[in-house]
Amino acid sequence: MPRISPPSPIARDHAAKRLAALATPPNALGRLGDLGVWLASCQGHVPPRPLEDVRLVIFAGDHGVAAHGVSAFPASITGAMVRTFLAGRAGVSALAAAHGVSVRVLDLGVADDFSDLDPQLRAALTAYKIRAGSGAIHLEDALTAQQTRAALDAGAQVARAEIAAGAQLLLSGDMGIGNTTAAAALVAAGVGASAAQVTGRGTGISDETLAHKIQLIQAALDRAGTRALDPIESLSALGSADLAATTGYLLAAAQDGVPVLLDGLMSVACALTAQRVEPGAAAWFAAGHRSTEPAQSLALTELGLEPILDLGMRLGEGSGAVTALPVLRSAVALLREVALLEDLPAPPQGP
Amino acid sequence: MPRISPPSPIARDHAAKRLAALATPPNALGRLGDLGVWLASCQGHVPPRPLEDVRLVIFAGDHGVAAHGVSAFPASITGAMVRTFLAGRAGVSALAAAHGVSVRVLDLGVADDFSDLDPQLRAALTAYKIRAGSGAIHLEDALTAQQTRAALDAGAQVARAEIAAGAQLLLSGDMGIGNTTAAAALVAAGVGASAAQVTGRGTGISDETLAHKIQLIQAALDRAGTRALDPIESLSALGSADLAATTGYLLAAAQDGVPVLLDGLMSVACALTAQRVEPGAAAWFAAGHRSTEPAQSLALTELGLEPILDLGMRLGEGSGAVTALPVLRSAVALLREVALLEDLPAPPQGP
Repeated sequence: MPRISPPSPIARDHAAKRLAALATPPNALGRLGDLGVWLASCQGHVPPRPLEDVRLVIFAGDHGVAAHGVSAFPASITGAMVRTFLAGRAGVSALAAAHGVSVRVLDLGVADDFSDLDPQLRAALTAYKIRAGSGAIHLEDALTAQQTRAALDAGAQVARAEIAAGAQLLLSGDMGIGNTTAAAALVAAGVGASAAQVTGRGTGISDETLAHKIQLIQAALDRAGTRALDPIESLSALGSADLAATTGYLLAAAQDGVPVLLDGLMSVACALTAQRVEPGAAAWFAAGHRSTEPAQSLALTELGLEPILDLGMRLGEGSGAVTALPVLRSAVALLREVALLEDLPAPPQGP
Repeated sequence: MPRISPPSPIARDHAAKRLAALATPPNALGRLGDLGVWLASCQGHVPPRPLEDVRLVIFAGDHGVAAHGVSAFPASITGAMVRTFLAGRAGVSALAAAHGVSVRVLDLGVADDFSDLDPQLRAALTAYKIRAGSGAIHLEDALTAQQTRAALDAGAQVARAEIAAGAQLLLSGDMGIGNTTAAAALVAAGVGASAAQVTGRGTGISDETLAHKIQLIQAALDRAGTRALDPIESLSALGSADLAATTGYLLAAAQDGVPVLLDGLMSVACALTAQRVEPGAAAWFAAGHRSTEPAQSLALTELGLEPILDLGMRLGEGSGAVTALPVLRSAVALLREVALLEDLPAPPQGP
């Protein structure tokens, strides 16, 4: 794989100087200032360009563990929600429409075959499909080594297509009943945490189901053993087709120098995995929000990322990233439009 | 003054039911759900209407304490920044343009007479001017009782004019070197805190200046004595023309049933004062952001408000409120546009 270059240190320094020269008190913009400088360094352009072309790709897939009592919802919801994205009626559809983000949903590993859909729509949806459902990770590998490689490549191809079409900022979203189980396992592998430390309530499970989910994740980690030390092996043993594709997508964005606004647990677990594959990738990522999943916070800490929002959201789909996007746009507007101190209109002097 | 009615409990219950019926897991929207329900109850309409007409009024004024070493900037900056707002080149100008917010700046008590401005522009800017600079609160009252009443009335008139012109949501902003000193004193009066508990660094003062600022605020509180127990007397003794007008503006919004998105210390100190004048006013307010000023957090706690953003901002001007606005719009979009669970496309059933 190509090495990852850091965002431009020259643009970063130039942007920091511009920030300090604005007609605002020093550091008065708080994190908005930092975000604007980061974006300028990613773009290699000062002031940063407006974020007009922002694209969300939702990677959908089913997870074998979903049949083993880890979710509040049946696995059939994955396909139903994919149809809801296609109809533009999901949570993230509403947010994306409000904030001018294009949404593309891809079936990487949904159990549903979508044979009822219009053939053209179905072809676009399933163009990168790896398999129908990934393995139940407490019992078997999620993917074969070949499938993992194919999913990573699929995600990279998707990112490169979006970039070629003009994306200035990429967002990743997820859909898949059971996906917080696999993502939490990936985070445990990435930071060396126990199942109990990484496991959260996903879409809202009971105490009893939570205890069972912890057991399954621990079984998966035990089964993976030392393979968890390798990020690609982790994707095969503990991940899924959708999570491997998301990882490939994030890696390609970083390799091609396009910034990414991360979402919740699935997005951040894949960002952590991408950073393990290619150290330096995380410099291209900003964290949209803090979800209620403990593994997401662990992974953010490991990546050195502080989320923009902390609103107790746990919808997934990319919803936290889209909600955070206007804050990034605010940061851009400030660096672009605010007068420099030296240009301030002076009050008239006394006689 | 007219009593304040609470936001519609019927609309609130109706909106909460709609939120629970959306095709999202229970509580997955976190605070976005709460904000949408609040806005629906304020509007008395479910789902809430889109926030298309949002208006920021910046109340500008000078403060006598500014001549006594409490700020990192000279008082002449107030007039210079008013000119920067008029030119649309300030921090909040950039944010407001990015997010479709109209900005109106009013001179309630700036020392500058703006005699160099175009007469029509100057007339609009100074239409509600109470005096040129408010009193140095550690030595004298900020305002006479009559001036306080006039400023409260001015703010109410401004709010009602904006509402009559179509405002669906009002924001308040501030400009005035020294204003964090007066606002912190108002918060100390409102929550019964000491000067040391409420005093912050404003635009960025040194440790030495901070210690001096605490002394001045304590002197002002000592001078006010038991008058601080009354909110209107607090405005006269400790406030300023711009802060009294902001309080009148917030009260009128609550009286007329128009929601307000609060900004930083000045906005929240006036919200606290408004709530003291008319208990129930705070039900019409949401908190845009947590500023770095300790008094703002104390006042938010007293008001029972949790800020939407926490980005370390301390620019003032209404900037935090404008930055938070898109999150409110996200909340509206979710309640308006997301499919209901009962309308979800069902996956095809097996044979």
